[in-house]
Amino acid sequence: MNNKAAVMYGTRDVRVEEREVPEPGPKEVLVEIRAVGVCGSDVHYYEEGRIGSFIVEEPMILGHESMGTVVGLGGEATRHKEGDRVTLEPGIPDGTCRECRAGRYNLCPNVRFFATPPIDGAFANYVAIHEDFAFALPETLSDDAGALMEPLSVGIWANRKAGTKAGDHVLVTGAGPIGLVSLQVALAEGATQVTVTDVAPERLEMARKMGATRTMNVAEEPLEEAGIEADSLIECSGNPTALGDGIRSLRPAGTAVVVGMGPNEETSVPLAFVQTREIWVTGTFRYANTYPAAIELAATGKVDLDALVTSRFDLDHAADALQASRKDAGNVKPMVVPNAGA
Amino acid sequence: MNNKAAVMYGTRDVRVEEREVPEPGPKEVLVEIRAVGVCGSDVHYYEEGRIGSFIVEEPMILGHESMGTVVGLGGEATRHKEGDRVTLEPGIPDGTCRECRAGRYNLCPNVRFFATPPIDGAFANYVAIHEDFAFALPETLSDDAGALMEPLSVGIWANRKAGTKAGDHVLVTGAGPIGLVSLQVALAEGATQVTVTDVAPERLEMARKMGATRTMNVAEEPLEEAGIEADSLIECSGNPTALGDGIRSLRPAGTAVVVGMGPNEETSVPLAFVQTREIWVTGTFRYANTYPAAIELAATGKVDLDALVTSRFDLDHAADALQASRKDAGNVKPMVVPNAGA
Amino acid sequence: MNNKAAVMYGTRDVRVEEREVPEPGPKEVLVEIRAVGVCGSDVHYYEEGRIGSFIVEEPMILGHESMGTVVGLGGEATRHKEGDRVTLEPGIPDGTCRECRAGRYNLCPNVRFFATPPIDGAFANYVAIHEDFAFALPETLSDDAGALMEPLSVGIWANRKAGTKAGDHVLVTGAGPIGLVSLQVALAEGATQVTVTDVAPERLEMARKMGATRTMNVAEEPLEEAGIEADSLIECSGNPTALGDGIRSLRPAGTAVVVGMGPNEETSVPLAFVQTREIWVTGTFRYANTYPAAIELAATGKVDLDALVTSRFDLDHAADALQASRKDAGNVKPMVVPNAGA
Amino acid sequence: MNNKAAVMYGTRDVRVEEREVPEPGPKEVLVEIRAVGVCGSDVHYYEEGRIGSFIVEEPMILGHESMGTVVGLGGEATRHKEGDRVTLEPGIPDGTCRECRAGRYNLCPNVRFFATPPIDGAFANYVAIHEDFAFALPETLSDDAGALMEPLSVGIWANRKAGTKAGDHVLVTGAGPIGLVSLQVALAEGATQVTVTDVAPERLEMARKMGATRTMNVAEEPLEEAGIEADSLIECSGNPTALGDGIRSLRPAGTAVVVGMGPNEETSVPLAFVQTREIWVTGTFRYANTYPAAIELAATGKVDLDALVTSRFDLDHAADALQASRKDAGNVKPMVVPNAGA
Repeated sequence: MNNKAAVMYGTRDVRVEEREVPEPGPKEVLVEIRAVGVCGSDVHYYEEGRIGSFIVEEPMILGHESMGTVVGLGGEATRHKEGDRVTLEPGIPDGTCRECRAGRYNLCPNVRFFATPPIDGAFANYVAIHEDFAFALPETLSDDAGALMEPLSVGIWANRKAGTKAGDHVLVTGAGPIGLVSLQVALAEGATQVTVTDVAPERLEMARKMGATRTMNVAEEPLEEAGIEADSLIECSGNPTALGDGIRSLRPAGTAVVVGMGPNEETSVPLAFVQTREIWVTGTFRYANTYPAAIELAATGKVDLDALVTSRFDLDHAADALQASRKDAGNVKPMVVPNAGA
Repeated sequence: MNNKAAVMYGTRDVRVEEREVPEPGPKEVLVEIRAVGVCGSDVHYYEEGRIGSFIVEEPMILGHESMGTVVGLGGEATRHKEGDRVTLEPGIPDGTCRECRAGRYNLCPNVRFFATPPIDGAFANYVAIHEDFAFALPETLSDDAGALMEPLSVGIWANRKAGTKAGDHVLVTGAGPIGLVSLQVALAEGATQVTVTDVAPERLEMARKMGATRTMNVAEEPLEEAGIEADSLIECSGNPTALGDGIRSLRPAGTAVVVGMGPNEETSVPLAFVQTREIWVTGTFRYANTYPAAIELAATGKVDLDALVTSRFDLDHAADALQASRKDAGNVKPMVVPNAGA
Repeated sequence: MNNKAAVMYGTRDVRVEEREVPEPGPKEVLVEIRAVGVCGSDVHYYEEGRIGSFIVEEPMILGHESMGTVVGLGGEATRHKEGDRVTLEPGIPDGTCRECRAGRYNLCPNVRFFATPPIDGAFANYVAIHEDFAFALPETLSDDAGALMEPLSVGIWANRKAGTKAGDHVLVTGAGPIGLVSLQVALAEGATQVTVTDVAPERLEMARKMGATRTMNVAEEPLEEAGIEADSLIECSGNPTALGDGIRSLRPAGTAVVVGMGPNEETSVPLAFVQTREIWVTGTFRYANTYPAAIELAATGKVDLDALVTSRFDLDHAADALQASRKDAGNVKPMVVPNAGA
Repeated sequence: MNNKAAVMYGTRDVRVEEREVPEPGPKEVLVEIRAVGVCGSDVHYYEEGRIGSFIVEEPMILGHESMGTVVGLGGEATRHKEGDRVTLEPGIPDGTCRECRAGRYNLCPNVRFFATPPIDGAFANYVAIHEDFAFALPETLSDDAGALMEPLSVGIWANRKAGTKAGDHVLVTGAGPIGLVSLQVALAEGATQVTVTDVAPERLEMARKMGATRTMNVAEEPLEEAGIEADSLIECSGNPTALGDGIRSLRPAGTAVVVGMGPNEETSVPLAFVQTREIWVTGTFRYANTYPAAIELAATGKVDLDALVTSRFDLDHAADALQASRKDAGNVKPMVVPNAGA
């Protein structure tokens, strides 16, 4: 077995090289990676070398939306067997801290998360992971769909925070991959109106195809003039104007969930509006307890992950994959397809 | 305007007679009734003359699943106009008691509810109702569907209590009209497995057509041997065995919602199982704040109410409508269609 | 009966004059007012003539923290009898709108609230109110305490939003009357650490006397250097710095409740911190379903409202009462004591 | 170091013998036990040899309410140091199963719980435990109080399930140790009425001393005639009549929490009452995330654990301790005090 990996050495510097095949720990499985989605955070590390206080100081493998085939088992691993197709939940929490005990393991201060410095990610042929963070995939799901359980989890988590329920009107600002999965999950959970905003016509077209009941190009039509009174806002653009206009589009006691990372530590919000309407504002940081639901939603066809995929690259072209969405707003989800046999 | 009504005088004694057209109060609308569903409680009053402590002591008009056309307005009524098609929420609470203030208006001790002694129901040509309890119907929905917003509300309420969410396995025991709408709402809210049980093959067939992922004829196959571990139970049969077996089919921290009324005040439940698994058990009594969601779910096609309708009767044959489901288990939802012009 | 009232004609222009004794409606009671607290909003109207979009355009009676004695009954009022001492919940919602039905009657768009233009308040000898918004007071409670059920309700509501529970660390920024009742309620609900901040030493001294486990003069010691990791923040100062520093003092998944009104529509908040820690931010607008709990907390001695009272004025000196807290930061709660016999 | 232990060999057969001092694992601490409470479950094992499906088949050390002093550290244990006084949370879950991940670690199917077959408990001089399940105790708390964090946790958990909040009326049926801590926690969380029932006058006297606002000897005065309308029921007697009468004493939408284990798998409950009032019924199984709050409540004096202690025994008299409460209903909480130096 050779383990080829795309390693980021610095800003806009990704090199394909051979790495040792990881040795699975006692409760780990060794997975031959078959598909990896490119996430905006991968792109951000690639272009900026950091996200907030997370700085790439040593060579690091990017990629955290991944699936593959089990090809090895640690001595105490019993959950999977060789040949199983699995999707990987990329954050391993410590399991005993206050946050973990309370069920908020996404907030564990000791979590080890793929492609977050200094932990390596999945742009590689082989990865080892704790067996309980690998989830079996049904045969009916494609490799791409298996890898995209990760962004789907973000969308599920956003909708849980939003409290999406039957008959809701959900406003999704930003129609990138996270906006599009949030839209799909909202519909799957019974939302009957989902309004999606963006400035890219090709992304709004994707939203329409995925079931948005209304799309708005906010470069042409300001959200605040649309007269929307939504039950919840799922903000996926990172744009402060979208956040402010989105909050002002909420009904009393509505909920705003901030998923997209904005450019600054501090952001101005319409706080008087929040107060007089008793709106709830929160943000999401990754997700917890979403993978089983994600697989079920995809396997039953309630969400369509294949529709997100817009291009594919092999490991040797990982750098191209990392630039693809920047060059073309319609290329929302490039995939990297490692091929251990190549 | 003549107001023909089917009036229950006693057990199995329903007479069609002329009643005065009601005069709408200041905030009321006068509605010409176009469709009314027959509910199990109507049948129960018809056959037994009572439900628990509610006793039919004076002649009373049955029927509480109704819709019609606005044909008159009280002096202060502004929400609707003549000609509007509306569905009627049949319970009018007092609006100021502790329960109402807390948003639990279905538990208002002073509620006036259609066809609950001594309040008249909707097996009639005309009914007056507070304008805020009449909800506009989109043109795309049939009269039958408009009337069936009431049982749909029961299904929505049951799923709210069950906390149905994406990826859930919901167990519905009993495939009568309430079981069938509960099934449909569970699917609309993202449940990916819905198991439905009954003893009538024709009802299980309806459940399959409406999307049940598994049906079980518990006359042939005991539920407890099915190895189910559901997130929630929605008990719609009123059968104590179904309740017990259903509870034992729940995962830890699951929820059992008792919708069907059993035969006795006291019922034996597997309490040790409830304790060691910290299961939540509750019941539903009507519903609150469901009509807007019900209309949205039906209007967007996420639930199909027309599929429930199995027979239609005019007012003169209301007694036949009340016996229809008893004579044929597959006749789950007979409708009464008053016709003011006739 | 003469009905003397302190009427605000314009900015810093309050005139004592005779008004007609109000005639109670069918479900109303006539109350002879015995004590009224001065609220910051009264002071704000007095000094600025407006709060946000609420503008005093006609002469209006201020005061909404009030109690008194029932001296008359409408024809259908049965809840109280003459001679009963009652505290008045000053906002009467419509009871049928979406917010009211959902139990959020404080957000009712049609609410009629004392001393909010154009509705008159309680700086008067007599007031009429719906009987269900007058609550009987036990004999053991003083008139002042009876009037202060209103700010206590604000504190209860803030703690409900904060989710205060046993063992919590609650951070209260601002030690005016609302901060002080929020502190007391937090302790009554099992908070074991309550940190209170302010810039006025005399207010911090009151906080200590009421049980604060830590007080900080943030004019001398910045909150951000205190190393606090609280479960919730109850912001009562209206100061944007307190809000930002307070949010940054929260544990992961903590809650920030914004009670104090800031100076601007838009406010900068540490949104990246909110996102990465999944903090919940909300605001309070009045309160709902708090009066029964407020009376119980005061009657059992779990909160001490008399300790808030710092000065008393008769109706003729209502203008002085309105200026008292501005002149002396330690004069946190001036009371107006109408005296119908005078 | 000698490790004396009281080992149960069979029904009413406890023998004091020497055991090896346990070797702490890498993340464990070795604790010299100073105080252990006798729980009803210890008594039940002692008398019956089993609780439900848990059967004592091998010699087992009883006792799970314990505290002591850290006297040894595993190689990777960093949270405590030698000499620290700690209380022991006696159930160690696996940390990765579905229940653990969701924050419900008390429902972990793989939990290892003290004195639950085949896991040994704390009637011994020395015990080893994962460092994260030992919690530092402040100097101000007695050894007895430190040990009784365990039953206090049960009371905290019961009140969390009950949703106790300011102004509530809580009904506690059964005034044994769990009833008494549930009472104290309810008061600490702002309940203003707590009614306690029992049949033993000396237990009701303890309840009164601990702040019960009403006590009822249900051997003399049936609960159902008391006219109580409580917000929640915390059932601590295991008596089916208490459960039924308690449920019928709840307000609409109230909550019944079943803590006491009844004699049978199946129990009759007033299900029609539960349905028409939409009452929630659940049970508790141990507790999760309670120890930090328990220590805070005791350290701040909001609960008084020393008041529960009615007798003390050394290890050689552990069998007497196990019989003490059976012989005298007023002897609610016997303690076992191992003494390593003896």
